[in-house]
Amino acid sequence: MTKPTITAFERSPDGGRGLARDMRVRWALEEVGQAYDVRLVSFTEMKQPAHLALHPFGQIPTYEEGDLALFESGAIILHLAQRHAGLLPDDASARARAVAWMLAAVNTIEPPILDLQVAKFAEGDKSWSAERLPLVLERIRRRLRELSARLGDADWLDGAFSAGDLLMIGVLMRVTSSGLLDAFPNLAAYVARGEARPAFQRAFAAQLAVFTNSLRDEAPRH
Amino acid sequence: MTKPTITAFERSPDGGRGLARDMRVRWALEEVGQAYDVRLVSFTEMKQPAHLALHPFGQIPTYEEGDLALFESGAIILHLAQRHAGLLPDDASARARAVAWMLAAVNTIEPPILDLQVAKFAEGDKSWSAERLPLVLERIRRRLRELSARLGDADWLDGAFSAGDLLMIGVLMRVTSSGLLDAFPNLAAYVARGEARPAFQRAFAAQLAVFTNSLRDEAPRH
Repeated sequence: MTKPTITAFERSPDGGRGLARDMRVRWALEEVGQAYDVRLVSFTEMKQPAHLALHPFGQIPTYEEGDLALFESGAIILHLAQRHAGLLPDDASARARAVAWMLAAVNTIEPPILDLQVAKFAEGDKSWSAERLPLVLERIRRRLRELSARLGDADWLDGAFSAGDLLMIGVLMRVTSSGLLDAFPNLAAYVARGEARPAFQRAFAAQLAVFTNSLRDEAPRH
Repeated sequence: MTKPTITAFERSPDGGRGLARDMRVRWALEEVGQAYDVRLVSFTEMKQPAHLALHPFGQIPTYEEGDLALFESGAIILHLAQRHAGLLPDDASARARAVAWMLAAVNTIEPPILDLQVAKFAEGDKSWSAERLPLVLERIRRRLRELSARLGDADWLDGAFSAGDLLMIGVLMRVTSSGLLDAFPNLAAYVARGEARPAFQRAFAAQLAVFTNSLRDEAPRH
Protein backbone atom coordinates (compact mmCIF):
# COMPACT_ATOMS: atom_id res chain seq x y z
CA MET A 1 0.00 0.00 0.00
CA THR A 2 1.22 3.50 -0.88
CA LYS A 3 2.13 5.45 2.26
CA PRO A 4 -0.88 7.71 2.85
CA THR A 5 -0.87 11.40 3.71
CA ILE A 6 -3.43 12.92 6.04
CA THR A 7 -4.09 16.57 6.82
CA ALA A 8 -4.33 18.12 10.29
CA PHE A 9 -4.65 21.62 11.76
CA GLU A 10 -1.44 23.66 11.56
CA ARG A 11 -2.45 25.27 14.88
CA SER A 12 -4.40 22.89 17.07
CA PRO A 13 -7.48 24.74 18.35
CA ASP A 14 -7.81 22.40 21.34
CA GLY A 15 -4.29 22.85 22.66
CA GLY A 16 -3.23 19.33 21.67
CA ARG A 17 -5.95 17.52 23.61
CA GLY A 18 -6.59 15.21 20.68
CA LEU A 19 -10.15 16.37 20.05
CA ALA A 20 -9.69 17.22 16.36
CA ARG A 21 -10.77 14.49 13.98
CA ASP A 22 -7.27 13.74 12.70
CA MET A 23 -6.73 12.03 16.08
CA ARG A 24 -9.21 9.29 15.20
CA VAL A 25 -7.52 8.62 11.88
CA ARG A 26 -4.02 8.69 13.41
CA TRP A 27 -5.23 6.19 16.03
CA ALA A 28 -6.63 3.86 13.35
CA LEU A 29 -3.39 4.08 11.35
CA GLU A 30 -1.41 3.20 14.47
CA GLU A 31 -3.74 0.28 15.34
CA VAL A 32 -3.16 -1.29 11.92
CA GLY A 33 0.54 -0.40 11.85
CA GLN A 34 0.39 1.76 8.74
CA ALA A 35 3.00 4.52 8.50
CA TYR A 36 1.69 7.87 7.28
CA ASP A 37 2.69 11.41 6.48
CA VAL A 38 0.94 14.52 7.76
CA ARG A 39 0.45 17.78 5.90
CA LEU A 40 -0.51 20.64 8.19
CA VAL A 41 -3.01 23.17 6.87
CA SER A 42 -3.93 26.62 8.17
CA PHE A 43 -7.53 27.77 8.60
CA THR A 44 -7.03 29.97 5.52
CA GLU A 45 -5.70 27.12 3.40
CA MET A 46 -8.63 24.90 4.42
CA LYS A 47 -11.03 27.21 2.55
CA GLN A 48 -8.90 27.44 -0.61
CA PRO A 49 -9.69 25.50 -3.82
CA ALA A 50 -6.76 23.09 -3.42
CA HIS A 51 -8.04 21.84 -0.07
CA LEU A 52 -11.71 22.03 -1.06
CA ALA A 53 -10.90 19.66 -3.94
CA LEU A 54 -9.91 17.12 -1.27
CA HIS A 55 -12.56 18.07 1.30
CA PRO A 56 -15.76 19.69 -0.02
CA PHE A 57 -16.57 21.07 3.46
CA GLY A 58 -13.14 22.62 4.08
CA GLN A 59 -12.26 20.53 7.10
CA ILE A 60 -9.58 18.12 8.26
CA PRO A 61 -8.63 15.32 8.09
CA THR A 62 -8.29 14.32 4.47
CA TYR A 63 -6.61 11.13 3.31
CA GLU A 64 -4.55 10.66 0.15
CA GLU A 65 -3.23 7.27 -0.89
CA GLY A 66 -1.89 7.23 -4.43
CA ASP A 67 -4.80 8.27 -6.65
CA LEU A 68 -7.39 7.85 -3.92
CA ALA A 69 -8.52 10.94 -2.00
CA LEU A 70 -10.99 10.58 0.88
CA PHE A 71 -12.59 12.84 3.47
CA GLU A 72 -14.77 12.14 6.55
CA SER A 73 -12.83 10.48 9.35
CA GLY A 74 -15.41 7.68 9.64
CA ALA A 75 -14.99 6.77 5.97
CA ILE A 76 -11.20 6.92 6.20
CA ILE A 77 -11.22 4.62 9.23
CA LEU A 78 -13.58 2.18 7.52
CA HIS A 79 -11.31 2.17 4.47
CA LEU A 80 -8.30 1.35 6.66
CA ALA A 81 -10.27 -1.27 8.61
CA GLN A 82 -11.28 -3.04 5.38
CA ARG A 83 -7.74 -3.06 4.01
CA HIS A 84 -5.87 -4.12 7.15
CA ALA A 85 -6.43 -6.64 9.93
CA GLY A 86 -7.05 -5.39 13.45
CA LEU A 87 -10.04 -3.06 13.36
CA LEU A 88 -12.92 -5.28 12.22
CA PRO A 89 -13.80 -8.87 13.15
CA ASP A 90 -13.49 -11.59 10.48
CA ASP A 91 -17.06 -12.85 10.87
CA ALA A 92 -19.36 -11.04 8.42
CA SER A 93 -22.18 -10.42 10.91
CA ALA A 94 -19.80 -9.16 13.58
CA ARG A 95 -18.22 -6.85 10.99
CA ALA A 96 -21.63 -5.39 10.12
CA ARG A 97 -22.35 -4.83 13.82
CA ALA A 98 -18.99 -3.06 14.31
CA VAL A 99 -19.90 -0.77 11.42
CA ALA A 100 -23.25 -0.08 13.13
CA TRP A 101 -21.31 1.15 16.18
CA MET A 102 -19.21 3.39 13.93
CA LEU A 103 -22.39 4.94 12.56
CA ALA A 104 -23.89 5.21 16.06
CA ALA A 105 -20.81 7.15 17.17
CA VAL A 106 -21.05 9.74 14.40
CA ASN A 107 -24.82 9.93 13.84
CA THR A 108 -26.37 9.28 17.28
CA ILE A 109 -23.78 10.21 19.92
CA GLU A 110 -21.84 12.97 18.18
CA PRO A 111 -24.69 15.29 17.03
CA PRO A 112 -25.77 16.30 20.58
CA ILE A 113 -22.09 16.65 21.50
CA LEU A 114 -21.54 18.94 18.50
CA ASP A 115 -24.50 20.95 19.76
CA LEU A 116 -22.63 21.45 23.04
CA GLN A 117 -19.65 22.83 21.12
CA VAL A 118 -22.00 25.20 19.28
CA ALA A 119 -23.60 26.22 22.59
CA LYS A 120 -20.21 26.93 24.16
CA PHE A 121 -18.24 28.45 21.31
CA ALA A 122 -20.66 29.83 18.70
CA GLU A 123 -23.43 30.86 21.13
CA GLY A 124 -21.58 31.24 24.42
CA ASP A 125 -22.10 35.01 24.38
CA LYS A 126 -25.82 34.88 23.55
CA SER A 127 -28.52 35.94 26.00
CA TRP A 128 -29.97 32.41 26.09
CA SER A 129 -26.67 30.63 26.65
CA ALA A 130 -26.99 29.89 30.40
CA GLU A 131 -30.66 28.95 30.24
CA ARG A 132 -30.28 26.69 27.21
CA LEU A 133 -27.15 24.82 28.34
CA PRO A 134 -28.98 22.39 30.68
CA LEU A 135 -31.19 21.26 27.79
CA VAL A 136 -28.15 20.60 25.61
CA LEU A 137 -26.44 18.67 28.40
CA GLU A 138 -29.56 16.61 29.08
CA ARG A 139 -29.78 15.53 25.44
CA ILE A 140 -26.20 14.25 25.70
CA ARG A 141 -26.91 12.55 29.05
CA ARG A 142 -29.83 10.69 27.56
CA ARG A 143 -27.57 9.14 24.92
CA LEU A 144 -24.86 8.42 27.48
CA ARG A 145 -27.41 6.62 29.70
CA GLU A 146 -28.44 4.42 26.79
CA LEU A 147 -24.85 3.74 25.78
CA SER A 148 -23.86 2.98 29.37
CA ALA A 149 -26.77 0.54 29.71
CA ARG A 150 -25.70 -1.30 26.59
CA LEU A 151 -21.98 -1.42 27.44
CA GLY A 152 -22.66 -2.76 30.95
CA ASP A 153 -19.49 -4.28 32.37
CA ALA A 154 -18.04 -5.30 29.01
CA ASP A 155 -14.66 -4.00 27.91
CA TRP A 156 -15.81 -3.09 24.40
CA LEU A 157 -19.16 -2.57 22.70
CA ASP A 158 -19.37 -5.90 20.84
CA GLY A 159 -16.70 -8.50 21.55
CA ALA A 160 -13.12 -7.50 20.73
CA PHE A 161 -11.95 -3.91 20.25
CA SER A 162 -13.04 -2.66 16.84
CA ALA A 163 -13.27 0.46 14.70
CA GLY A 164 -16.66 0.95 16.36
CA ASP A 165 -14.98 1.38 19.74
CA LEU A 166 -12.27 3.56 18.24
CA LEU A 167 -14.78 5.99 16.76
CA MET A 168 -17.07 5.90 19.82
CA ILE A 169 -14.18 6.66 22.17
CA GLY A 170 -12.97 9.37 19.78
CA VAL A 171 -16.40 10.99 20.09
CA LEU A 172 -16.72 10.51 23.88
CA MET A 173 -13.32 12.16 24.40
CA ARG A 174 -15.04 15.39 23.41
CA VAL A 175 -17.08 15.41 26.63
CA THR A 176 -14.47 14.07 29.07
CA SER A 177 -13.51 17.55 30.27
CA SER A 178 -17.16 18.55 30.76
CA GLY A 179 -17.57 16.05 33.60
CA LEU A 180 -20.53 14.44 31.81
CA LEU A 181 -18.94 11.00 32.04
CA ASP A 182 -18.60 11.21 35.85
CA ALA A 183 -22.13 9.86 36.24
CA PHE A 184 -21.28 6.88 34.04
CA PRO A 185 -18.24 5.13 35.51
CA ASN A 186 -18.37 2.34 32.94
CA LEU A 187 -18.17 4.88 30.11
CA ALA A 188 -15.32 6.74 31.80
CA ALA A 189 -13.47 3.43 32.19
CA TYR A 190 -14.25 2.55 28.58
CA VAL A 191 -12.67 5.79 27.35
CA ALA A 192 -9.67 5.25 29.63
CA ARG A 193 -9.31 1.71 28.28
CA GLY A 194 -9.13 3.08 24.76
CA GLU A 195 -6.69 5.81 25.73
CA ALA A 196 -4.41 3.23 27.36
CA ARG A 197 -3.89 1.36 24.10
CA PRO A 198 -0.32 1.74 22.79
CA ALA A 199 -1.66 2.77 19.37
CA PHE A 200 -3.71 5.56 20.98
CA GLN A 201 -0.67 6.73 22.91
CA ARG A 202 1.46 6.93 19.77
CA ALA A 203 -1.27 8.80 17.89
CA PHE A 204 -1.84 11.17 20.79
CA ALA A 205 1.86 11.97 21.05
CA ALA A 206 2.02 12.65 17.31
CA GLN A 207 -0.85 15.15 17.35
CA LEU A 208 0.48 16.76 20.52
CA ALA A 209 3.88 17.25 18.89
CA VAL A 210 2.24 19.53 16.30
CA PHE A 211 0.95 21.71 19.10
CA THR A 212 4.14 21.83 21.15
CA ASN A 213 6.11 22.59 17.98
CA SER A 214 3.70 25.45 17.22
CA LEU A 215 4.18 26.78 20.72
CA ARG A 216 7.91 26.71 20.22
CA ASP A 217 7.52 28.64 16.95
CA GLU A 218 5.47 31.23 18.75
CA ALA A 219 7.85 31.65 21.67
CA PRO A 220 9.33 35.16 21.90
CA ARG A 221 12.77 35.46 20.36
CA HIS A 222 15.47 37.16 22.45
CA MET B 1 -30.41 -14.19 1.59
CA THR B 2 -33.02 -14.54 4.36
CA LYS B 3 -35.84 -12.06 3.86
CA PRO B 4 -35.05 -9.25 6.29
CA THR B 5 -37.44 -7.51 8.69
CA ILE B 6 -37.15 -3.82 9.46
CA THR B 7 -38.96 -1.77 12.08
CA ALA B 8 -40.83 1.49 11.48
CA PHE B 9 -43.05 3.84 13.49
CA GLU B 10 -46.54 2.48 14.11
CA ARG B 11 -47.79 6.07 13.88
CA SER B 12 -45.73 8.20 11.51
CA PRO B 13 -44.89 11.47 13.32
CA ASP B 14 -44.30 13.27 10.01
CA GLY B 15 -47.66 12.46 8.45
CA GLY B 16 -46.17 10.05 5.92
CA ARG B 17 -43.75 12.55 4.38
CA GLY B 18 -41.00 9.95 4.38
CA LEU B 19 -38.73 11.79 6.82
CA ALA B 20 -38.32 8.94 9.32
CA ARG B 21 -35.16 6.92 8.86
CA ASP B 22 -36.95 3.74 7.80
CA MET B 23 -37.54 5.52 4.47
CA ARG B 24 -33.81 5.44 3.68
CA VAL B 25 -33.59 1.72 4.38
CA ARG B 26 -36.79 0.96 2.42
CA TRP B 27 -35.35 2.92 -0.51
CA ALA B 28 -32.09 0.96 -0.39
CA LEU B 29 -33.98 -2.34 -0.22
CA GLU B 30 -36.01 -1.32 -3.26
CA GLU B 31 -32.91 -0.19 -5.18
CA VAL B 32 -31.30 -3.62 -4.76
CA GLY B 33 -34.57 -5.50 -5.28
CA GLN B 34 -34.63 -7.17 -1.87
CA ALA B 35 -38.09 -8.01 -0.52
CA TYR B 36 -38.57 -7.23 3.18
CA ASP B 37 -41.06 -7.38 6.00
CA VAL B 38 -41.93 -4.49 8.30
CA ARG B 39 -42.77 -4.69 11.98
CA LEU B 40 -44.43 -1.53 13.28
CA VAL B 41 -43.51 -0.40 16.79
CA SER B 42 -45.19 2.13 19.05
CA PHE B 43 -43.28 4.84 20.93
CA THR B 44 -43.86 2.83 24.12
CA GLU B 45 -42.55 -0.39 22.62
CA MET B 46 -39.42 1.38 21.34
CA LYS B 47 -38.28 1.98 24.92
CA GLN B 48 -38.95 -1.59 26.09
CA PRO B 49 -36.18 -4.20 26.60
CA ALA B 50 -37.18 -6.25 23.54
CA HIS B 51 -36.65 -3.30 21.19
CA LEU B 52 -33.64 -1.93 23.11
CA ALA B 53 -31.95 -5.30 22.56
CA LEU B 54 -32.16 -4.56 18.84
CA HIS B 55 -31.55 -0.82 19.08
CA PRO B 56 -29.62 0.47 22.12
CA PHE B 57 -30.95 4.00 21.57
CA GLY B 58 -34.61 3.01 21.27
CA GLN B 59 -35.11 4.23 17.73
CA ILE B 60 -36.18 2.91 14.34
CA PRO B 61 -35.26 1.39 11.96
CA THR B 62 -33.74 -1.89 13.03
CA TYR B 63 -32.82 -4.67 10.62
CA GLU B 64 -33.04 -8.40 11.28
CA GLU B 65 -31.78 -10.94 8.77
CA GLY B 66 -31.58 -14.44 10.21
CA ASP B 67 -29.22 -14.19 13.19
CA LEU B 68 -27.94 -10.75 12.25
CA ALA B 69 -29.47 -7.73 13.98
CA LEU B 70 -28.39 -4.22 12.98
CA PHE B 71 -29.31 -0.67 13.88
CA GLU B 72 -28.32 2.74 12.40
CA SER B 73 -29.79 3.32 8.96
CA GLY B 74 -26.37 4.18 7.51
CA ALA B 75 -24.93 0.85 8.66
CA ILE B 76 -27.95 -1.08 7.36
CA ILE B 77 -27.66 0.61 3.97
CA LEU B 78 -23.92 -0.10 3.81
CA HIS B 79 -24.60 -3.74 4.68
CA LEU B 80 -27.16 -3.99 1.85
CA ALA B 81 -24.84 -2.16 -0.55
CA GLN B 82 -22.00 -4.57 0.17
CA ARG B 83 -24.21 -7.65 -0.30
CA HIS B 84 -26.07 -6.59 -3.45
CA ALA B 85 -25.17 -4.86 -6.70
CA GLY B 86 -26.58 -1.43 -7.44
CA LEU B 87 -25.60 0.87 -4.58
CA LEU B 88 -21.80 0.96 -4.72
CA PRO B 89 -19.41 1.11 -7.70
CA ASP B 90 -17.21 -1.92 -8.46
CA ASP B 91 -13.94 0.03 -8.43
CA ALA B 92 -12.41 -0.03 -4.94
CA SER B 93 -11.47 3.66 -4.87
CA ALA B 94 -14.87 4.75 -6.14
CA ARG B 95 -16.49 2.54 -3.48
CA ALA B 96 -14.46 4.22 -0.74
CA ARG B 97 -15.49 7.64 -2.07
CA ALA B 98 -19.16 6.64 -2.10
CA VAL B 99 -18.80 5.59 1.54
CA ALA B 100 -17.25 9.00 2.27
CA TRP B 101 -20.43 10.63 0.93
CA MET B 102 -22.51 8.36 3.16
CA LEU B 103 -20.54 9.57 6.18
CA ALA B 104 -20.72 13.19 5.00
CA ALA B 105 -24.51 12.87 4.85
CA VAL B 106 -24.87 11.65 8.43
CA ASN B 107 -21.94 13.39 10.14
CA THR B 108 -21.57 16.73 8.30
CA ILE B 109 -24.93 17.59 6.71
CA GLU B 110 -27.37 15.95 9.14
CA PRO B 111 -26.14 17.36 12.51
CA PRO B 112 -27.09 21.00 11.75
CA ILE B 113 -30.37 19.73 10.28
CA LEU B 114 -31.06 17.78 13.48
CA ASP B 115 -30.40 21.02 15.34
CA LEU B 116 -33.19 22.64 13.32
CA GLN B 117 -35.56 19.87 14.42
CA VAL B 118 -34.51 20.49 18.03
CA ALA B 119 -34.99 24.25 17.59
CA LYS B 120 -38.47 23.75 16.14
CA PHE B 121 -39.86 20.90 18.19
CA ALA B 122 -37.94 20.67 21.49
CA GLU B 123 -37.24 24.40 21.89
CA GLY B 124 -39.96 25.99 19.78
CA ASP B 125 -41.67 27.36 22.88
CA LYS B 126 -38.52 28.79 24.49
CA SER B 127 -37.91 32.51 24.90
CA TRP B 128 -34.86 32.37 22.63
CA SER B 129 -36.52 30.42 19.83
CA ALA B 130 -37.13 33.27 17.35
CA GLU B 131 -33.77 34.94 17.95
CA ARG B 132 -31.79 31.73 17.71
CA LEU B 133 -33.46 30.28 14.61
CA PRO B 134 -31.51 32.41 12.07
CA LEU B 135 -28.23 31.08 13.51
CA VAL B 136 -29.42 27.50 13.15
CA LEU B 137 -30.55 28.12 9.59
CA GLU B 138 -27.27 29.82 8.67
CA ARG B 139 -25.27 26.79 9.86
CA ILE B 140 -27.33 24.60 7.54
CA ARG B 141 -26.97 27.07 4.66
CA ARG B 142 -23.21 27.04 5.02
CA ARG B 143 -23.15 23.27 4.48
CA LEU B 144 -25.64 23.50 1.63
CA ARG B 145 -23.45 26.12 -0.09
CA GLU B 146 -20.46 23.81 0.13
CA LEU B 147 -22.44 20.80 -1.06
CA SER B 148 -23.98 22.80 -3.91
CA ALA B 149 -20.52 23.98 -5.00
CA ARG B 150 -19.24 20.41 -5.10
CA LEU B 151 -22.26 18.95 -6.90
CA GLY B 152 -22.18 21.66 -9.60
CA ASP B 153 -24.18 20.52 -12.61
CA ALA B 154 -23.58 16.81 -12.07
CA ASP B 155 -26.49 14.44 -11.63
CA TRP B 156 -24.94 12.64 -8.63
CA LEU B 157 -22.13 13.35 -6.18
CA ASP B 158 -19.47 11.06 -7.67
CA GLY B 159 -20.26 9.35 -10.97
CA ALA B 160 -23.24 6.98 -10.98
CA PHE B 161 -25.99 7.02 -8.33
CA SER B 162 -24.73 5.35 -5.14
CA ALA B 163 -25.60 4.75 -1.50
CA GLY B 164 -23.87 8.09 -0.88
CA ASP B 165 -26.52 9.87 -2.95
CA LEU B 166 -29.30 7.83 -1.36
CA LEU B 167 -28.28 8.82 2.15
CA MET B 168 -27.54 12.45 1.20
CA ILE B 169 -30.93 12.86 -0.46
CA GLY B 170 -32.58 11.13 2.51
CA VAL B 171 -31.00 13.78 4.75
CA LEU B 172 -31.75 16.74 2.44
CA MET B 173 -35.43 15.71 2.30
CA ARG B 174 -35.62 16.88 5.90
CA VAL B 175 -35.17 20.52 4.86
CA THR B 176 -37.20 20.54 1.63
CA SER B 177 -40.29 21.94 3.35
CA SER B 178 -38.27 24.68 5.09
CA GLY B 179 -37.50 26.37 1.77
CA LEU B 180 -33.76 26.18 2.48
CA LEU B 181 -33.11 24.44 -0.83
CA ASP B 182 -34.76 27.25 -2.83
CA ALA B 183 -31.47 29.15 -2.88
CA PHE B 184 -29.69 26.10 -4.29
CA PRO B 185 -31.50 25.00 -7.47
CA ASN B 186 -28.96 22.27 -8.19
CA LEU B 187 -29.58 20.70 -4.77
CA ALA B 188 -33.36 20.95 -5.19
CA ALA B 189 -33.01 19.25 -8.60
CA TYR B 190 -30.70 16.63 -7.05
CA VAL B 191 -33.31 15.74 -4.43
CA ALA B 192 -36.05 15.67 -7.09
CA ARG B 193 -33.85 13.37 -9.22
CA GLY B 194 -33.59 10.95 -6.31
CA GLU B 195 -37.30 11.13 -5.55
CA ALA B 196 -38.10 10.36 -9.19
CA ARG B 197 -36.34 6.98 -9.06
CA PRO B 198 -38.79 4.06 -9.23
CA ALA B 199 -37.23 2.49 -6.14
CA PHE B 200 -37.79 5.71 -4.18
CA GLN B 201 -41.40 5.83 -5.35
CA ARG B 202 -42.07 2.26 -4.21
CA ALA B 203 -40.43 2.90 -0.84
CA PHE B 204 -42.31 6.16 -0.37
CA ALA B 205 -45.65 4.51 -1.15
CA ALA B 206 -44.90 1.72 1.35
CA GLN B 207 -44.15 4.11 4.23
CA LEU B 208 -47.13 6.30 3.32
CA ALA B 209 -49.42 3.26 3.43
CA VAL B 210 -48.58 2.84 7.14
CA PHE B 211 -49.78 6.37 7.76
CA THR B 212 -52.95 6.19 5.68
CA ASN B 213 -53.79 2.84 7.30
CA SER B 214 -53.33 4.43 10.73
CA LEU B 215 -55.66 7.24 9.76
CA ARG B 216 -58.26 4.69 8.73
CA ASP B 217 -57.87 2.91 12.07
CA GLU B 218 -58.45 6.18 13.85
CA ALA B 219 -61.54 7.14 11.86
CA PRO B 220 -64.70 7.29 13.99
CA ARG B 221 -66.81 4.18 13.78
CA HIS B 222 -70.55 4.65 13.08
